[in-house]
Amino acid sequence: MILLVKSGGESSLPEWRVLFATLLPELEVRWWNDPEVRAEEVAYAFVWAPEPGRLARYPNLRLVVSSGAGVDHIVGDPALPCVPIAKMAAPEAVARMREYALATVLFHHRKLHRFVANQRARIWREEETTEAARRSVGVMGLGTLGLPAALALRDVGFRVRGWSRTGREVEGIETFSGRDSLPAFLGGTEILLCLLAATPETAGIICARSLAMLPAGASVINAARGSHVVVTDLLAALDSGHIEAATLDVFDVEPLPEDSPLWTHPKVLVTPHVASLPDRAARARFVAAAIRAFEADGTVLNRYDPARGY
Amino acid sequence: MILLVKSGGESSLPEWRVLFATLLPELEVRWWNDPEVRAEEVAYAFVWAPEPGRLARYPNLRLVVSSGAGVDHIVGDPALPCVPIAKMAAPEAVARMREYALATVLFHHRKLHRFVANQRARIWREEETTEAARRSVGVMGLGTLGLPAALALRDVGFRVRGWSRTGREVEGIETFSGRDSLPAFLGGTEILLCLLAATPETAGIICARSLAMLPAGASVINAARGSHVVVTDLLAALDSGHIEAATLDVFDVEPLPEDSPLWTHPKVLVTPHVASLPDRAARARFVAAAIRAFEADGTVLNRYDPARGY
Repeated sequence: MILLVKSGGESSLPEWRVLFATLLPELEVRWWNDPEVRAEEVAYAFVWAPEPGRLARYPNLRLVVSSGAGVDHIVGDPALPCVPIAKMAAPEAVARMREYALATVLFHHRKLHRFVANQRARIWREEETTEAARRSVGVMGLGTLGLPAALALRDVGFRVRGWSRTGREVEGIETFSGRDSLPAFLGGTEILLCLLAATPETAGIICARSLAMLPAGASVINAARGSHVVVTDLLAALDSGHIEAATLDVFDVEPLPEDSPLWTHPKVLVTPHVASLPDRAARARFVAAAIRAFEADGTVLNRYDPARGY
Repeated sequence: MILLVKSGGESSLPEWRVLFATLLPELEVRWWNDPEVRAEEVAYAFVWAPEPGRLARYPNLRLVVSSGAGVDHIVGDPALPCVPIAKMAAPEAVARMREYALATVLFHHRKLHRFVANQRARIWREEETTEAARRSVGVMGLGTLGLPAALALRDVGFRVRGWSRTGREVEGIETFSGRDSLPAFLGGTEILLCLLAATPETAGIICARSLAMLPAGASVINAARGSHVVVTDLLAALDSGHIEAATLDVFDVEPLPEDSPLWTHPKVLVTPHVASLPDRAARARFVAAAIRAFEADGTVLNRYDPARGY
């Protein structure tokens, strides 16, 4: 039986082989584009952004494991076979996102982006900032990654509010749900952190209209999917001064194309889709756990639900 | 009675006047260089870096309040009068330093400095990083500012070790004390955060010898005093690659001179002595509390002890 791998580029195959040799010694590990793979032997696929139509080629495919927490890079395939999908949920991914949320919210809270820009011009200038206890952070999405991030931000002292589809209640966090509550949620958000799942409903949710609902001087962080942000609208809001700064980890096209204006914008920090990236050993452990659980009794860990869209 | 003020530059005097009019309405608030101040009427001085010899001119001076947490900018005066000194300890200063510690340690932990540099060159490159639970942060100085910072770093998940003069015990933090323990302390420190008081014993403590004790790839943050770091040694360690990156908030000469090589070094983040800076309202509240306590029964809040040197 074959475990087909498409994650991290073909150069990472030797490392995946070493990791899976220990964790799943009975499986044959093959790269996605290996021409010698016999389609009927493929039982498992561990993938990031498989080409549409490809997964349908494997008649005995039992389980797909997504290399990321989201599945939008898989489920857009019109020929997607009816096979369960386990969404990457390495405990490390949660910890990584929590760290990234803290790092980037604190970066904007303490206006480090201004110091980075001032340093280039050799400008020594204090920036008066409020303490965390008086700073409001709004987290969009309170799921597997969003909720732990919101709790961590609350625990370091920020005033945290959360916006989610279901409007769950969380201690010490003011929660909002549904489109109708967006003006109230955004109106009281000084640092916006987007950790939403990518669904048709959330596409373009950070646009001219919603950015205008944020108070003047707010900052925006997107560590979910590029599709959530209308980049031209964000750039206009940065240039008008309404939005103070932005950190973006995800983009419609990745790697971010060389001619993107985001690379050189003085108010934008670009990170290369690393927010929740666990190291390979951690991801391999989740793949092994998902396959073991499925083999034991058909359990699909952290299963993709087509009805919800994530 | 006069409260003489030298903090934040003369342009801040109107704001200080408004704040103190509410908090200490019985005192006359005058700027440090006001030629019309009658020396014998000065009862209190709230200062940052007063010129040597100046404080000795006021025969009825009762209390000096330092505008910063340290007093090295005051006690170097050879003509320092025998007047008690209260060191700024606005609760906000502790919270600010805790935030700065979190912001800068997370900045280095997640290698944001590399992304800042890569962005300028339009380079999209993942940086594999360990999670906080496997990352060791060493805090030098476990005093008023250092201990809360160390605890906050522990609470967000880092492995924290502390080095202090007295070697106090702190739950969940491995502590070290004395010069003899420096090799052991530094040898296990991946991100070093210096929050020491500035004394003759700690001057130049971050030098070629101690930097060499850090493991290769370590990062250095100094938010205490410029005198702790031998800048030429730090630059050499950055250039050799032994030290990955540095964030510096304090310098021997401030503002940092325009010709300092720190401004343009690609591995250095310069912040303009803002780490623990509370806003003016918070500092004014501490000054008022210190004067009230002194007037009530001679208590000196957070008193400078010449024997310890801080």
